[in-house]
Amino acid sequence: MCRWLAYSGSPILLREALYAPAHSLIDQSLHSRLGAETTNGDGFGIGWYGAGEVPALFRGTEPAWNDANLRDLSAHVTSPLFFAHIRASSGTAVQQTNCHPFRHGRWLFMHNGLINDFHAVKRDLVLDVDPSLFATIEGQTDSEVLFHLALTLGLEDDPRAAVAGAVGLVEAAGRRRGIEHPIQMTIAVTDGERMWGFRYSSEGRSRSLFVTTDVPTLRRLYPSMALLEGMSDNAHLIVSEPLGDLKGAWNEVPEASCAVVGGGKAEILPFVPPRSSRSQRPAHLAGSRPG
Amino acid sequence: MCRWLAYSGSPILLREALYAPAHSLIDQSLHSRLGAETTNGDGFGIGWYGAGEVPALFRGTEPAWNDANLRDLSAHVTSPLFFAHIRASSGTAVQQTNCHPFRHGRWLFMHNGLINDFHAVKRDLVLDVDPSLFATIEGQTDSEVLFHLALTLGLEDDPRAAVAGAVGLVEAAGRRRGIEHPIQMTIAVTDGERMWGFRYSSEGRSRSLFVTTDVPTLRRLYPSMALLEGMSDNAHLIVSEPLGDLKGAWNEVPEASCAVVGGGKAEILPFVPPRSSRSQRPAHLAGSRPG
Amino acid sequence: MCRWLAYSGSPILLREALYAPAHSLIDQSLHSRLGAETTNGDGFGIGWYGAGEVPALFRGTEPAWNDANLRDLSAHVTSPLFFAHIRASSGTAVQQTNCHPFRHGRWLFMHNGLINDFHAVKRDLVLDVDPSLFATIEGQTDSEVLFHLALTLGLEDDPRAAVAGAVGLVEAAGRRRGIEHPIQMTIAVTDGERMWGFRYSSEGRSRSLFVTTDVPTLRRLYPSMALLEGMSDNAHLIVSEPLGDLKGAWNEVPEASCAVVGGGKAEILPFVPPRSSRSQRPAHLAGSRPG
Amino acid sequence: MCRWLAYSGSPILLREALYAPAHSLIDQSLHSRLGAETTNGDGFGIGWYGAGEVPALFRGTEPAWNDANLRDLSAHVTSPLFFAHIRASSGTAVQQTNCHPFRHGRWLFMHNGLINDFHAVKRDLVLDVDPSLFATIEGQTDSEVLFHLALTLGLEDDPRAAVAGAVGLVEAAGRRRGIEHPIQMTIAVTDGERMWGFRYSSEGRSRSLFVTTDVPTLRRLYPSMALLEGMSDNAHLIVSEPLGDLKGAWNEVPEASCAVVGGGKAEILPFVPPRSSRSQRPAHLAGSRPG
Repeated sequence: MCRWLAYSGSPILLREALYAPAHSLIDQSLHSRLGAETTNGDGFGIGWYGAGEVPALFRGTEPAWNDANLRDLSAHVTSPLFFAHIRASSGTAVQQTNCHPFRHGRWLFMHNGLINDFHAVKRDLVLDVDPSLFATIEGQTDSEVLFHLALTLGLEDDPRAAVAGAVGLVEAAGRRRGIEHPIQMTIAVTDGERMWGFRYSSEGRSRSLFVTTDVPTLRRLYPSMALLEGMSDNAHLIVSEPLGDLKGAWNEVPEASCAVVGGGKAEILPFVPPRSSRSQRPAHLAGSRPG
Repeated sequence: MCRWLAYSGSPILLREALYAPAHSLIDQSLHSRLGAETTNGDGFGIGWYGAGEVPALFRGTEPAWNDANLRDLSAHVTSPLFFAHIRASSGTAVQQTNCHPFRHGRWLFMHNGLINDFHAVKRDLVLDVDPSLFATIEGQTDSEVLFHLALTLGLEDDPRAAVAGAVGLVEAAGRRRGIEHPIQMTIAVTDGERMWGFRYSSEGRSRSLFVTTDVPTLRRLYPSMALLEGMSDNAHLIVSEPLGDLKGAWNEVPEASCAVVGGGKAEILPFVPPRSSRSQRPAHLAGSRPG
Repeated sequence: MCRWLAYSGSPILLREALYAPAHSLIDQSLHSRLGAETTNGDGFGIGWYGAGEVPALFRGTEPAWNDANLRDLSAHVTSPLFFAHIRASSGTAVQQTNCHPFRHGRWLFMHNGLINDFHAVKRDLVLDVDPSLFATIEGQTDSEVLFHLALTLGLEDDPRAAVAGAVGLVEAAGRRRGIEHPIQMTIAVTDGERMWGFRYSSEGRSRSLFVTTDVPTLRRLYPSMALLEGMSDNAHLIVSEPLGDLKGAWNEVPEASCAVVGGGKAEILPFVPPRSSRSQRPAHLAGSRPG
Repeated sequence: MCRWLAYSGSPILLREALYAPAHSLIDQSLHSRLGAETTNGDGFGIGWYGAGEVPALFRGTEPAWNDANLRDLSAHVTSPLFFAHIRASSGTAVQQTNCHPFRHGRWLFMHNGLINDFHAVKRDLVLDVDPSLFATIEGQTDSEVLFHLALTLGLEDDPRAAVAGAVGLVEAAGRRRGIEHPIQMTIAVTDGERMWGFRYSSEGRSRSLFVTTDVPTLRRLYPSMALLEGMSDNAHLIVSEPLGDLKGAWNEVPEASCAVVGGGKAEILPFVPPRSSRSQRPAHLAGSRPG
């Protein structure tokens, strides 16, 4: 489907994470090893926090591997927290409004995976989105609808609960349509301070997700690695696929879990969508349809 | 907003209508005289009937005036019925899925104008679309929603009544939100046999629309004009703006009217959206909300 | 590098050759088996003969696999002779002027492979191009320069000799710069009547090239294959990679050979660039520099 | 032809210069007042100095007025020296390699105007480019060739003399071909420390060029203008067209002059291309052809 990367730590050039590693995200756009497809050439996007009140977005419809602007920007933009995403479309158009990350105020969101049989449940799910958020859906993707469901359910207050609720709505809608495994996903969200990486699928066989070992430990393992010297102790990457083969650096996020990075620590928490979505109905629809 | 052109008659090269005239559609992309904007550079599209079961679409996000592919195609594709559209976005993204014409089966649709305050009424209108058509909305535009409302109300059986009903829904939704003039439009639709050109606005001051004089009359007026010799008697153009200054060639379609071309004749019929939209409620929503 | 396909025969929808086969050119854009790269996603182009005086070109910078316009055109355009090309850039920009096929008057040209160390010899080769042709070089590619060298040396009169002469100039320029293997190529050229497919490399290990078995033989081999019934006896494809596994259908063009299709026959001729390029110097430079 | 803007001074958000002014460069992309064309929609580019060793480039083929990435970047990137350019093509393709600014090492270059009858002199001029620079010409424009001629003649040592020499070569080549007015131009070049703005044309009727009044004077004129408070005393804009109607703010650069901004001062110097180009022949061609 897609590949993505999320960085938080001391400010670095985007290039250090996007292009420099042996199996960088750009390399994965042509040669993904763990993705559902080898090629992720249906557009890309980066989002980063810096000067503006909201994070910056740069999204393009070209394959990441041959985008001259992305290469140049990555060599000039420095940020303490950024997202990057390369897309393999599961059918929808290759256009900027379908490229991740998606943005809402201070928040960024990106997704790898899919809502199965999205055509069948799209209308139900779009109706679940808060009417005040409806018109800010710009593209056609399942991912953006998922983001808006999470926003509807309080993403800005409690990301883990809101994403769980959104997944609950998707699974409820899917079950109503007889879809066996309604969702497959890894998701990253951030408010610019902390970042959350989710791994989940209805079938319990989710796409891969990794978080890096903490920097002090890596320094002990690799005392001569120059890159680590300039990096803050609290730096972490969350990635859908390791950027190289460095032993001890990449820790798999377990099935049905959420990695939370920020505030000086990184932790793994359980991620369990509610089985009955009734309690999760958006306020504007509460009681109007059986969960 | 936009400019468009619809041709029906003996097969001609698209170039004859798109590039050759003095004030051609391509010229209008830079120098529109009657449009709301001088420049219509936010993408373009052509749709034509030929070999395939459904009409062909070619849409691009570049300005029409500098698109090499459009120039080449227009010099090679011949068709007895085609639509062409140049876009001036009223805010939504410049992407192919927002470019006209839109297609559904054998049908093409294009629009100049806008649904006022579309953000405020979009959700209501999208809910009015038949659920089975919901997932085929690909872009973000008011125009595509209008097309889907008309499809919901039977465009394929009675285009004039269906477009009137769709406009009635838009005006009803707008009035519920306190919007003074809910819609401004010229619209073209075709099934590949006949074509309909609508001119209407809630305020009664609609964008311009013209239909050409019949070819036999033009031949009498301009006996030495070579172009007319090769053209069939039943050929007509419907355009949002004349392609030149040929006296007697361009007849304004009156306010609140519909020009119908096909079956050997061209006629102007009244176009009156229903004031009460209750009778026009889509079947799937009948009775569920006050009109 | 790239993959390409050339068709000549009874008029068919482009789709039949581009999309329908099991291992179609579109499939090869993601999953090439015999190419130097698996992915050929750096733009595409088609050229076909039809209504116009010159062949039509449609070229795009998106990967072929996700281009909606290419899909639509291919389902509507019918032609008795067409070229199609998918590109894997060896470094130059992804832009339409770098996409194949290239056109000059009635002629089309496309190339898979490269001029080694093109930066080192580009100026020499561009100077070898006839000054009257100089300003029609639009892009940056080695391929387009090669085309212009062949035009300089009489492509329109004797394609095989002109391409051989052009290759001779490239090899001479390369040798002057100490380049071991100056060129690697398969090339297709056509004037709309006949088509030539060249296979050659300085090292004698050229990229693959295939021409289809004649249709009457295929009909004997596969009497129940519907596709073959509608196809003229003289139909042939020349391809850089077979479009499927049909036994007996794909014949490898030998090293240093040229397949010529047209005028009711298909033949394989030797292709031997001149060793001394002095005799091949373009007229405008004759004697001005040692070969 | 085109419109451009160059800023040097205290670091500001690009948006302040590109979008905020009443008649901003983005506004000029649709509604230029002093340009040869009203519309400048054939691509754009920005170049800025910041983190990297070389300036960053971001160039696009869309009209500047509807590019979401440009809007976002401009709201997030801060720089003490940047160039911005909007293009109206005089015939060459709309592709990134034809978009200004052009970059060579630490240097940026952009141009408004044209080399008349460029097709006729292109080969001569390209041959005048130093062979070591030949292969770094990426696009098709007269502007990029002009830049490479100036690089050939020592732009990095003495920009004013090098640009004069380049113009001398163009005028000499044009005269040899009987072209009455070989060049029309405003040009901006910078090394990241200083910037030079040239105004010149063979006919002595050059496109407009303006440089802003020094900030201390503007503060005296407009003591209550907030924008000026945060701006350093040495800040200046050079523009092809004023960004608004502020009286006393925009000073026309005289015909055949060069504005130099940097090192704490802004001055206007004469700009006189050499009449005999013989003395200016590039070293690699000295004596090989009559000037």
